[in-house]
Amino acid sequence: MLYFEDYAVGQKSSFGSYHVTREEIIEFASKYDPQPFHLSDEGAAGTHFGKLSASGWHTGAMCMAMLVENMKNQQHASLGSPGLDELLWKRPVHAGDTLRVETEIIEKRRSASRPELGLTKNRIRVLNQNDEVVMQSVNVGMVAVRNPAHTD
Amino acid sequence: MLYFEDYAVGQKSSFGSYHVTREEIIEFASKYDPQPFHLSDEGAAGTHFGKLSASGWHTGAMCMAMLVENMKNQQHASLGSPGLDELLWKRPVHAGDTLRVETEIIEKRRSASRPELGLTKNRIRVLNQNDEVVMQSVNVGMVAVRNPAHTD
Repeated sequence: MLYFEDYAVGQKSSFGSYHVTREEIIEFASKYDPQPFHLSDEGAAGTHFGKLSASGWHTGAMCMAMLVENMKNQQHASLGSPGLDELLWKRPVHAGDTLRVETEIIEKRRSASRPELGLTKNRIRVLNQNDEVVMQSVNVGMVAVRNPAHTD
Repeated sequence: MLYFEDYAVGQKSSFGSYHVTREEIIEFASKYDPQPFHLSDEGAAGTHFGKLSASGWHTGAMCMAMLVENMKNQQHASLGSPGLDELLWKRPVHAGDTLRVETEIIEKRRSASRPELGLTKNRIRVLNQNDEVVMQSVNVGMVAVRNPAHTD
């Protein structure tokens, strides 16, 4: 199991391979974001999306799926996340794209009120098969501390 | 149709009623966020979630569903969103909760490069049936300008 003590500022990771299908874009958008540019090529023509594009919340969810898979592979002791900042949807995500994730730890600190809890701030980038960033954000992650009694 | 010109800073809206089911929490999390506290009561026991809780991305998606429904009801000329800031998941969302949305326009400006485009900055709060805020964020919305030739 990897705990708060095992992570260092500056540490980078690269992982994931999520193939985006037309069916999944339309299924997600039909339920959660039924705007025309997320439902059909016709609805996206004439907008800056150009053709059918995934909902930004769908891209975030696909990113999360890759993050969770990576945490499981790493045996990362995740306790969830209080939130995120500076989320930008930089380019449309289209059917046929394959997404991947790059992360970097930019800050870490122990919780002041909960000794068993550590917080890491992570820069997250989602890239497509052309190495173009489609989404980026700064996420806070809560992770278990291995030795809560240690205060260093 | 409501355009950029029809919105004013300080304008508030309150809308939506989204009933959250156990089935939907587990279905979303199984696909996009399969951490134990999003999959079962047992997996959430002993964490700060307490019992089965929706993925934060699911809460965001349910919020988006209410925003889109409201935009359709208002005939709002949405062109999508470049991103958001200060997203906080403040309380767990449980099966049986009913969510609603409150929004306030806190800034508006015309795009410098695209005369047909306006940008609004909106404070978004998602509340449960006990009027507790479960999620909040500051979203940027892109909306069509009715009269791109006017520069006032």
